[in-house]
Amino acid sequence: MSREQALAYLEQHAERFLAELESFLRIPSISTLPEHKADMERTANWVAENLRAIGAENVQVFPTAGHPVVYGELRAVQPNAPTVLVYGHYDVQPAEPLEAWHSPPFEPTVRGERLYARGATDMKGQVIASLKAAEAAMHGGLPINLKFLIEGEEEVGSPNLAPFIAGHKDLLACDFCLNPDAGMIAPDLPTITYALRGLAYFELRVYGPKQDLHSGIYGGVVHNPAQALAELIAGMHDEQGRVTLPGFYDKVRPLDDEERAELARLPMDEAFYLAQTGAPALWGEAGYTPVERVGARPTLEVNGLYSGFIGEGAKTVLPAYAMAKISCRLVPDQDPDEVAAQMRAYLEQHAPPTIRWELEVMHGGPASITDRKSPWVQALAQAMEQVWGVRPAYKREGGSIPVVAQIQEILGKDSVLTGFGLPDGNLHAPNENLHLPTWRKGIMALVHFFYNLAD
Amino acid sequence: MSREQALAYLEQHAERFLAELESFLRIPSISTLPEHKADMERTANWVAENLRAIGAENVQVFPTAGHPVVYGELRAVQPNAPTVLVYGHYDVQPAEPLEAWHSPPFEPTVRGERLYARGATDMKGQVIASLKAAEAAMHGGLPINLKFLIEGEEEVGSPNLAPFIAGHKDLLACDFCLNPDAGMIAPDLPTITYALRGLAYFELRVYGPKQDLHSGIYGGVVHNPAQALAELIAGMHDEQGRVTLPGFYDKVRPLDDEERAELARLPMDEAFYLAQTGAPALWGEAGYTPVERVGARPTLEVNGLYSGFIGEGAKTVLPAYAMAKISCRLVPDQDPDEVAAQMRAYLEQHAPPTIRWELEVMHGGPASITDRKSPWVQALAQAMEQVWGVRPAYKREGGSIPVVAQIQEILGKDSVLTGFGLPDGNLHAPNENLHLPTWRKGIMALVHFFYNLAD
Repeated sequence: MSREQALAYLEQHAERFLAELESFLRIPSISTLPEHKADMERTANWVAENLRAIGAENVQVFPTAGHPVVYGELRAVQPNAPTVLVYGHYDVQPAEPLEAWHSPPFEPTVRGERLYARGATDMKGQVIASLKAAEAAMHGGLPINLKFLIEGEEEVGSPNLAPFIAGHKDLLACDFCLNPDAGMIAPDLPTITYALRGLAYFELRVYGPKQDLHSGIYGGVVHNPAQALAELIAGMHDEQGRVTLPGFYDKVRPLDDEERAELARLPMDEAFYLAQTGAPALWGEAGYTPVERVGARPTLEVNGLYSGFIGEGAKTVLPAYAMAKISCRLVPDQDPDEVAAQMRAYLEQHAPPTIRWELEVMHGGPASITDRKSPWVQALAQAMEQVWGVRPAYKREGGSIPVVAQIQEILGKDSVLTGFGLPDGNLHAPNENLHLPTWRKGIMALVHFFYNLAD
Repeated sequence: MSREQALAYLEQHAERFLAELESFLRIPSISTLPEHKADMERTANWVAENLRAIGAENVQVFPTAGHPVVYGELRAVQPNAPTVLVYGHYDVQPAEPLEAWHSPPFEPTVRGERLYARGATDMKGQVIASLKAAEAAMHGGLPINLKFLIEGEEEVGSPNLAPFIAGHKDLLACDFCLNPDAGMIAPDLPTITYALRGLAYFELRVYGPKQDLHSGIYGGVVHNPAQALAELIAGMHDEQGRVTLPGFYDKVRPLDDEERAELARLPMDEAFYLAQTGAPALWGEAGYTPVERVGARPTLEVNGLYSGFIGEGAKTVLPAYAMAKISCRLVPDQDPDEVAAQMRAYLEQHAPPTIRWELEVMHGGPASITDRKSPWVQALAQAMEQVWGVRPAYKREGGSIPVVAQIQEILGKDSVLTGFGLPDGNLHAPNENLHLPTWRKGIMALVHFFYNLAD
């Protein structure tokens, strides 16, 4: 096995790798639009062909109820090497509004250091980075086993992926999953995302009188459901910005000093969040920095609110009904079902006898976290330092990526998330682009990663 | 002058009076529907003809920007008698849903003791009661001066009435106004409404981040506008159900023991309000009975609430914006402009620096009240006792009747409200009906009232 041979191969074939990415980007694999169904098949086959070309075995294009899943595996030269499952998706977002693009979304165009096309960053660029790092490592003697799982429905919520994983547990058996669908914070700061928040989503309905009332004739004798709902919502946070659902923080892992120090390295301070959000001032749980609050602390947000008359003008109705959509972002080891029980307990304690309430638990999923000290995270961190010359940043993501929780639940394996797109890559927006120098460093880092894992 | 002659006349002409009411009810004078414009003219002329027939002078049908106003006056036999302005409206609500009527809405039908037709109670029956009491009193020698002001736009908010009153102050000069557009609480309990609440209506808008945010990526760092709005609303009442706007109660007239005793006579206890509203339990300002809270105490109600995503399902949006429609019902001597300033002061004191807010003052009007000890209220109370054999109930109405405030503001005169419709008269609903025995007693009471005023 020779890391050096693999890295040299990368340099020799850099032009072809870019050409392959451009070829991949030319197929408009828009998963949400039925008229692109044939393009989706074509893209799946393109990925399968590329896998075969780099020497993958057992390459298959699995049909699903939606778009196909592509699978292929590459064998390590040493029999007892670890097995890494590489996750990716070949589908992209729609390109609209087309008039906002400076070059057509499905005609990849290099301007300066960037390649512009729909999917360049999210995530065809990352899929090619993984495939080409594998190809180069094959050339140097593959130090680990690789399995590729490339789906075509991520941009529509991956409805058929969990059943596929559940139905192919043996095929997908691995030591951990590499998911390069996250990004980098800055071109000089490679990033490892090691945690994602989970979700518990509710609809809370408050009922008062049997029908809407005249607010003059009855205002003052019944508890207005909109007011009662406001009182319940207001009570869900204390003055420190802490969520008051009973037991809400019981299972939340405390942040140790080392992790807080790591998170403090992220260039995401108050000024960053003020600029990103445009809010007049920041707000949140006392005692935690913004990046800690978003990544490592659970939250409760009102996603929607409705009652009574909301049209133009005035209507003096005393509404019979009020509704709020409320969701909690969860951290490890909070459980969505337990949080639903906590929400119910809060309502039982605080809802007054003057109204009736109903709570619908809409959907949810647990948070996920990978040990930063695990050998694979350390192998990736070391690889990044070998390429960029700096220690990577460790980041917790505030949102959810369902496939990570699915792989944790179904296969029992952790994912480590990374990626080589930049924050100004215009994901899901016009003029999506890939910063090519960063992308090339990313491929190099993956090669190092594979060899580090075997060391 | 002979009260007895007038009362005898009533009995002799009872059949014709009912026939005239039926004729009046046959014209579908639906003010809100343009296709009934000709019917509106026809109804106005019908009223003018009836006024002329009973001996009114200076009868005029005044065109307005909408439907006509009918005027006519009757002279007392004594020169220095008081002048009463009788207010009424000849328009009715639409009759839909037609299939719910047991007999056609514009074919008046007597079943048992009730007359069924759209407008029977609201308020063609009351207009005819006033006209026929005047006709009978003319026969006995009219003891007071009467002026009739019968409009055609009450069911559409009387948009042209205030300008008409302002433009005809001399014509409408009077000692007080009789407004029979209120009703009776029960067939054996004649009712005088001596106070109406006013209104101050607001739209409160709360802004946070510059655009909707992903609740995972930003939940925990910005103050959710829906949550901030809920906190502001929750703070607008204290635990005693009192409104917390600064100075809100400063000008509210205290209830004296005598008035509380009068209000306690009303058969509107907790059980009544529970049955009427269907609320699980009553709610309101501590220390006051339901009927006091609705009539004599100011309130603050949320009329509408909106933020974020309110469709089916789940969307993890952190909304940039939240809105509430909020209105206060006012009692004498609260001023709508002062209440707007109090709302603004509350928001300035309580809105956190993490959000921006805007308050739109939409519309409002003052409360009105008539002295229960005034000679005309006493004259009406006595008349009711003469007919029913019981002291009338004195009621404060929780809603607003704009014409009462307009007459108080423009002419400087108080109104006394009564009427002979019953709570089960289905106002604005299918099968509207008039309880004929009560209606006939009402006409008798008005005759007594006219004579009592001159005594």
